[in-house]
Formats: sequence, C-alpha cells, structure tokens
Amino acid sequence: MRALLISAAPSAHSLTDDLTRTASAELTAQGHHVDVLHLNDLHWDAVVRPGDYGLDEFHRPVGDHADDARTDGTIDGVVERHQGLVERADLIVLVFPLWWAGMPAVLKGWFDRVFTQGFAYGLHDADGNSRKYGDGAFAGKRGLVITTTGDRDSAFGERGLNGNIHDLLFPITHGILWYTGIAPLKSLAILGVDTPNWPGIEDAREQVRARLASLDRDEPIPYRRMLEDYDADRQLRKEHATGRTDLAIHLRSERAS
Amino acid sequence: MRALLISAAPSAHSLTDDLTRTASAELTAQGHHVDVLHLNDLHWDAVVRPGDYGLDEFHRPVGDHADDARTDGTIDGVVERHQGLVERADLIVLVFPLWWAGMPAVLKGWFDRVFTQGFAYGLHDADGNSRKYGDGAFAGKRGLVITTTGDRDSAFGERGLNGNIHDLLFPITHGILWYTGIAPLKSLAILGVDTPNWPGIEDAREQVRARLASLDRDEPIPYRRMLEDYDADRQLRKEHATGRTDLAIHLRSERAS
Repeated sequence: MRALLISAAPSAHSLTDDLTRTASAELTAQGHHVDVLHLNDLHWDAVVRPGDYGLDEFHRPVGDHADDARTDGTIDGVVERHQGLVERADLIVLVFPLWWAGMPAVLKGWFDRVFTQGFAYGLHDADGNSRKYGDGAFAGKRGLVITTTGDRDSAFGERGLNGNIHDLLFPITHGILWYTGIAPLKSLAILGVDTPNWPGIEDAREQVRARLASLDRDEPIPYRRMLEDYDADRQLRKEHATGRTDLAIHLRSERAS
Repeated sequence: MRALLISAAPSAHSLTDDLTRTASAELTAQGHHVDVLHLNDLHWDAVVRPGDYGLDEFHRPVGDHADDARTDGTIDGVVERHQGLVERADLIVLVFPLWWAGMPAVLKGWFDRVFTQGFAYGLHDADGNSRKYGDGAFAGKRGLVITTTGDRDSAFGERGLNGNIHDLLFPITHGILWYTGIAPLKSLAILGVDTPNWPGIEDAREQVRARLASLDRDEPIPYRRMLEDYDADRQLRKEHATGRTDLAIHLRSERAS
C-alpha cells in the first residue's frame, strides 16, 4: 500500500510533527510506502491565485468558485506534483491541530489549490451523472483524519459544548474526502492536549500506532452514495431516516457509540 | 454602528467582490461606518508563523495549538491593526465563496492569525470560568455570514446531499463567532451560482441588500450559553433536548423552517 501523509504541523518541534513521524514510522514498519508532505516546511502557499490557473489575473466578471476559475492554461508545477502523489496513494492521512473548529489554513488551502476541477471534481459518468459522494476521481482510496485539540473529551462528545467531533469534522470527512470518492475511516481525535509541557505525548503516539495497526480490518464511515440514496433534487429519499434533518441521516447505519 | 466586512474574494472581478461592494454600499446608505478588508488584495498571509508570536522559530517541544504558541513578544503589526478593527466593530460580516464545504484558506487563516490567545480566547471571568460560547472578548458584537455556492438549493436543504447549510456552517457560526461572544445572525447562503456567465447577479445583490435591510429587527441564532445550559463536564444538561445528539441541540429553540 502507498500512503500519503499531509501534515499541518506549525513547526518541527510540534506535537503534530511528532505524531506525523510516529504515523510514518508505523506505516513503514507495516511494509507500506509512505510519502509525507510537511506543508509548513514546504512554505505552502495556501491561497488560490490566478497563477494556479495559468492566468496572469482573474478576469471572469462573476464566478469565484474554484470550478469557475478553471484552468485554461498550465497548472502550477508544485500543484501538479502533489496531484501525482494523490493519484498514486491508496491511503491519505491528514494530521493537524484543530484550530477554530477546523483545519489550519495551510491545510485547507492545500485542498483549495490541489483539488482542482477535472482532477478532484466536475467529473461525470457515462450517463451524465456527477461523480461525487461515494463515486469520483478517487474512488477506491481511503482517508483518515488525525487531529489534536485542547478541550476535554466530554466537550467534544455526543452532547458536548463544542459540538460533537464527528459533526465538526463532517465538512472534511464528507464534504472533501467522501465527495471525491475517498472512503474516510473513523477519525482519530486526540483530546485534552493543550496543557503546556503536556505529559501525554507517549500516550498520543500510542493512540496513533494503535489506530494504524487496525487499518486492514477497518470499515469506512458508512456515508451514503449519491446515486443510491438521494433523489433527483439531491435530497435524501423519504424512506431513509424519515423525518430527520441532522447530519447523521447521511450515514447508512448509525454510528457505534 | 460600525461594520467590519471581511472578504475572501479571489479577485476584484469576482462575485464575492461584487457582493462585498453591494453590502458596503447598503450599510453606508443606512448611515453606518464601514471598514472593508479585502484579504486577497492585502496579500494576506494565511499561515501562522513564529513571527506572529514575536519568535524567530517555534521551540516548544509539544503543543502546536494556537494557545500553546502564545505570544511572549511583540505581535505582528498587521495582525494588531486588524485586531483594532475587530475591537471597534459592532457587526462583523464575512463574505466568501463556499469552497470544499468551508471558508477559503485565506479567510480561515485570518482567524488563525488574528484571533490570538488573550485577544479572542483564553479569557476568564472573576470566578475563574472560561469566557466563551455566549460570553467572551467580543460579547455585544454581532456577526453575519454571507456565502455563495454552486449546488442547487435543495442539495443544501434540511435533508440535502451536501449536509444542511446550517450544520456545515456550524464550525464558523458556533465554533468561531459564538465561541468568542459574537452573536451570529442567520447566515445568508446564495445558492446555485456556479454557472458560467450566471444571470442571477442582480438577484444576488438584492438578496444581500434585503438581508442587511432587516439587521435592526434580526434575532441572532439562539445558541446556548455555556454557563447556563452545560454541566461541569461541558455537556448539555440532561433536561435539554433529552436523548438527542445532533448539532441542533445547541439551539435554545428550534430553528424556523
């Protein structure tokens, strides 16, 4: 198997960097090939610019969605290399600290720039259906979110103050990974880490190793497939999770508690 | 009133830029003072770097959360100026295209860098309670999300394929705005805009003007307050939304359909 680890570690002295190295070592020990992108070390430019589309500047009078500003020229060379790494990967692992309930900008901007139209979205099957949510460019690949956050476990639990961690990560696991066909495995959220001189680092490493040790037996999060469970208006068919409107309706079966 | 508009428009020819100008003109016409931050025009650096904390490099052995890498030196001058604009604002309006189910990185990175510890979080009241979720540095201010997205209305509806738009925006409205005490008004999501040469731009402008015309009578999204509705473990008290685990449990009353 070939794994691509994408790290948003703010520095080489950070917990995220430590856990990225831990994950890389564990996957290598299992016999997998591992590529690692340290976005901050690469001085990754997180902002979509006209040069991403081979343009000197954006000229469209309206339309600032990524799929409007589509390429009609050459694509940035670094973006192209990263796209090659995505194409070759069987498993994509995101490692990041949870900042303001989401990815640090450097990682969000990696998706904004690398997941371009025609590569990650905007694809159609032979019948003209959009290929997304279960199908898509990356169908067959698996994804894993590893994130760390400061607040206590219960504050990210089912009825936790911050919102439950699964729903907070839904825009990533469902809106990015599953959208493009990547089957997300259950996320690993390492909580309660923001005490200075935190003593739990070896425990955190062990959580990462244990999570990766079970990769072979893991079932992805059972998100629904667009063409099977939604109607022509892209709404969940009435017979599924009837009457409900929460994000868990997009699961084929309820999450294990 | 003083309004701060923060725009993630990718260019001056974009729909987001057009709607930012529309919003600015409408608020000015109402007699308000308006500041506008065009993040791309400002060449905003979206990535947290050691210089944000007055350091040459990060040295902490663990801890890469923003509140670990806290300032012990001077803060970046631009960040400080933007913090001043936040402090003076009564209303903070975010205008952005929804990319990969969230903010473009340039805007996420504005929060990552400007909402520093001691300014936006990490505050305590006289009793030692954290000041967040309803209380906080920015209590008394209001916030508004204006976002545009390509898919059709129903695909972002209550049972829509992408997840309902309110829950997709929860990490922003609840996790950033409400966390810091900013009371978020009901978000304006302008949908179905990603057709090239989209004919609906005047309708989109009118939606923005109409949304801003009712500011005075608007009630914020009724998110719950930490000190009132959650227990010592930061879980929602059992008597509220008993047995439920969806994100809407964090509303004091159900959203109007």
